[in-house]
Amino acid sequence: MRSILLTIAYEGGAYAGWQVQPGQRTIQGELEQALLRITGETIRVIGSGRTDAGVHALGQVAGFRTSSPMESDVFQRALNAELPDDIAVVSAAEAVADFHPIRDSESKRYRYQIDDGPVRDVFARRYAWHCRHGLDEAAMAAGAVHLLGRHDFSSFETAGAERPDSIRTVSDISVIRGGNGASSRITIEVEADGFLYNMVRAIVGTLVEVGRGAQSPDWVRQVLEACDRSQAGPTAPPQGLFLLWVKYPDAIYANR
Amino acid sequence: MRSILLTIAYEGGAYAGWQVQPGQRTIQGELEQALLRITGETIRVIGSGRTDAGVHALGQVAGFRTSSPMESDVFQRALNAELPDDIAVVSAAEAVADFHPIRDSESKRYRYQIDDGPVRDVFARRYAWHCRHGLDEAAMAAGAVHLLGRHDFSSFETAGAERPDSIRTVSDISVIRGGNGASSRITIEVEADGFLYNMVRAIVGTLVEVGRGAQSPDWVRQVLEACDRSQAGPTAPPQGLFLLWVKYPDAIYANR
Repeated sequence: MRSILLTIAYEGGAYAGWQVQPGQRTIQGELEQALLRITGETIRVIGSGRTDAGVHALGQVAGFRTSSPMESDVFQRALNAELPDDIAVVSAAEAVADFHPIRDSESKRYRYQIDDGPVRDVFARRYAWHCRHGLDEAAMAAGAVHLLGRHDFSSFETAGAERPDSIRTVSDISVIRGGNGASSRITIEVEADGFLYNMVRAIVGTLVEVGRGAQSPDWVRQVLEACDRSQAGPTAPPQGLFLLWVKYPDAIYANR
Repeated sequence: MRSILLTIAYEGGAYAGWQVQPGQRTIQGELEQALLRITGETIRVIGSGRTDAGVHALGQVAGFRTSSPMESDVFQRALNAELPDDIAVVSAAEAVADFHPIRDSESKRYRYQIDDGPVRDVFARRYAWHCRHGLDEAAMAAGAVHLLGRHDFSSFETAGAERPDSIRTVSDISVIRGGNGASSRITIEVEADGFLYNMVRAIVGTLVEVGRGAQSPDWVRQVLEACDRSQAGPTAPPQGLFLLWVKYPDAIYANR
């Protein structure tokens, strides 16, 4: 069996998330149905990780096995012809036979968009969290630096997922105002070797507490050290979150 | 009776256009219903011009008369609390009593967005026309300059609207690749003292014929001179079109 790696963009608003669920539209479900129509095979598509209902992706990665002889670029075009308008295969590549999208991933980067203008931006409401506070992005950035490095991120993990531990390494975190040419846009990006359930949204909800002046930047360090989800801010809503990319070692690509 | 001028942004995808139509959701209808709830008055809202189903606005202008004593900024906040998420009042101002949004307008500017990447941009599909051709934007710009100045634009007017003449003055037209940080984004902007029905969409459909190499830039001049709609390109789809702003003389504002 061959192994194909897909890089996928989607607007998550119409979906109950990545993972197949009975009676619900999901990204994984749409991909598997499209592959069934193309190959006649019942194929399981495995993502690098689940994204929740309403969360978007610019570069989610998924893999599947097939006995089809179709070239990867033909797979890409056939999938884009079959998939709904809000899911697109950005690229497709031949992977080594034992490629596994979860096990092999080295790091990921997420973006979260906030709109803090006094009047809602009607074009951002699907892609940003509208906070009316007028946030202090410098204070948010000062709070965010406490999260850099290797830590137990239990305070930023929603219960429910079963992961063996909650130690992760955040290699980059940034808070920038003015992306997309809009002075009311705040963009937060977080890069790590892995993420706990709802981790980015809990980090964003916590930084917004700092941005609106309810807490000091140093409070973020206290929240982190508490290892207690109830100490952190609320979980930010899904529509502001984008999975930007997932990094794999070169060795997972065939023919390179 | 006082006269209030509203500047309005909307995402047009969910609406049958600006103008009230029985049994349909329209921008004008939503504004009038919100004003009825706020003032108790049955108020007619007049726009600077109609926008079609699916067309967006960043700065549509509308006016209405009221006997309410409410300050204009209170009107803005009350309307934003009542309006659906895809319509926002960006500003509200007191106008002179006889302000008329159509008669008094001096000029308008529209933007049209095209995405010509090989794979559709899932986040642009509501806000751009996806042309798979790989367009030559320099040829499009060379064609566009023929439209600058005062001309009879009959070739770019969809039949149906009753306007006394089809002479308009285009004061600016631009074709630029790379807006929004995307190399596959082409942005066309047109500014004029007034626009005929579907004029921008007919201009864009014509320029795309040039961009994909089916016609030369000089053909745009021939189309213009023909004064015959059948000579021009097709009407571009609505979701790429944005009304950017409408300009009025200072004299229409009260208290300035």
